[in-house]
Amino acid sequence: MGQLFDTRMAEWREQIDSCLHTIISETAYPDDFKEILEYAVFPGGKRLRPILFLEWHSLYAPPNEESLKFACAFELFHCYTLIHDDMPCMDNDDIRRGKPTVHKKYGEGKALLAGDALLDLAYMTMYSAAYAVGKLKNIQAFMLSGDMGVIRGQYLDMYGKAEHINNLLGDVYMFKTASLIASACKMGYLFMSDMPEEEYRAPFIQHIIDRLFIPNPDKYKEQRVSLAAGAGMFGILFGVAFQIYDDISEYVAGEKADSANVFDFLPLDEAKELLNTYLNDAVAQLNREYNGDTSYLKQLVEKFIIV
Amino acid sequence: MGQLFDTRMAEWREQIDSCLHTIISETAYPDDFKEILEYAVFPGGKRLRPILFLEWHSLYAPPNEESLKFACAFELFHCYTLIHDDMPCMDNDDIRRGKPTVHKKYGEGKALLAGDALLDLAYMTMYSAAYAVGKLKNIQAFMLSGDMGVIRGQYLDMYGKAEHINNLLGDVYMFKTASLIASACKMGYLFMSDMPEEEYRAPFIQHIIDRLFIPNPDKYKEQRVSLAAGAGMFGILFGVAFQIYDDISEYVAGEKADSANVFDFLPLDEAKELLNTYLNDAVAQLNREYNGDTSYLKQLVEKFIIV
Repeated sequence: MGQLFDTRMAEWREQIDSCLHTIISETAYPDDFKEILEYAVFPGGKRLRPILFLEWHSLYAPPNEESLKFACAFELFHCYTLIHDDMPCMDNDDIRRGKPTVHKKYGEGKALLAGDALLDLAYMTMYSAAYAVGKLKNIQAFMLSGDMGVIRGQYLDMYGKAEHINNLLGDVYMFKTASLIASACKMGYLFMSDMPEEEYRAPFIQHIIDRLFIPNPDKYKEQRVSLAAGAGMFGILFGVAFQIYDDISEYVAGEKADSANVFDFLPLDEAKELLNTYLNDAVAQLNREYNGDTSYLKQLVEKFIIV
Repeated sequence: MGQLFDTRMAEWREQIDSCLHTIISETAYPDDFKEILEYAVFPGGKRLRPILFLEWHSLYAPPNEESLKFACAFELFHCYTLIHDDMPCMDNDDIRRGKPTVHKKYGEGKALLAGDALLDLAYMTMYSAAYAVGKLKNIQAFMLSGDMGVIRGQYLDMYGKAEHINNLLGDVYMFKTASLIASACKMGYLFMSDMPEEEYRAPFIQHIIDRLFIPNPDKYKEQRVSLAAGAGMFGILFGVAFQIYDDISEYVAGEKADSANVFDFLPLDEAKELLNTYLNDAVAQLNREYNGDTSYLKQLVEKFIIV
């Protein structure tokens, strides 16, 4: 029947935290700068992205030491976005995870450099882990971070104007949040595979297909590939849901939203319905012939249902 | 006898600029964000890093289209550092290359994101170019950008305290400036080679040897490898010289230095002597049995001699 869900999540988190400490301590940065990076990365939140990577990895094959490092690259990347997003010229937040944000604690200059360093370190970690297992082709999907990912989403969120719920979900949430989560899921599933480069690029959303993924759907009939496409699709659906969940949590708690959110377009009951539709669609992607046990991913998703 | 030096440099610059325009235009960023990236990258300065990459590349084999893209990744990376360094929380500069800095023109939030995007784009460009020629192993040396490179150097420059000229040259200038230049030279020379991964890591400076390069100097007796080590050594020497040149130019022009510089330790005549010693040592690396014509690199270096 496998481990209990909570035990399993706690064990992943312990492994992830230990690996993140190691990665930071093994850099050649001066000690006082390492301290800032540690401050930015610990104590962590849910460690959702590396956990999704490791869970999806487990549906293909058990993760090894290099898989764990690669998983941590997603967390490093995520932490870079938090540091920069919190800065006065962006969301101007003073508190993150219950303590002063990096720029409040260390000043803006050091926060700027710490964010840059974590972005850089994410790529370095990813590169060396993928190199070690001979899977450099996998890096391609991680590249969703830039113009098809987080930076694009952040730009649209700050300076764009969502005129319709579809813009909000399909542009801002899709890029700001779902792209990195989808990348973690898909790359977790594919990290140990030997698929040719082009087959990593499974189609799942039209404007991603147009740019990054191969316009030849006939290639994706083989079972393994369509399962990989399922991992990406799961990530997109869960990633968008995750952002809606965030909106609802803030709304219910009476917090003022920093930027565009679902309540610009929907009342609470419809927002909840939208969230649960996305979550159910994500879970539907798990009802396939994977090698591993999908029950942990199902339980993870179900934690975000709001009734 | 080859082309005239000035014609050759102008042609490199034209190719580099054209490639940079293409790279930016082919991203999926919104048009108004692409405009900011264009503003940050054009008009360029000397395009020194990609030119060094291409000149060193020419000493091994003629550059192809992918080499040119890889060369441009160094310029994208360089431009990211300029945007972030100019921000109010860092050097707080209003003017760069004769026009308002990115944050003066577009605001700090957009400048922050534009810098992040160029750092990210540098890695993406490098990855796809190296992948296209089947030379992914080469990426390793580019990784000098982070804890053994620009970010470390910038941190030491801003928050460290150089107590001795050796700290200034061997830590700040070495990391802030010379590491990326050395990486451009060495990777240019090695881009088309088929050397095993570990041989890319030729030893040249002790604290780099300690961390990144293989502690087995017996491996480096073969001619090609020692030439590659020469490329790295040239880059370090020229890179440090380049920063001293900058110090002297600012000093002679009566500009106030932002941070630690050689005049904290040396009078003008000794600073000039130091500069010319580094430049001569760099030129000495060019008197070897390379495949191509080293006269362009020699002329390039000689432009920086101050008598």
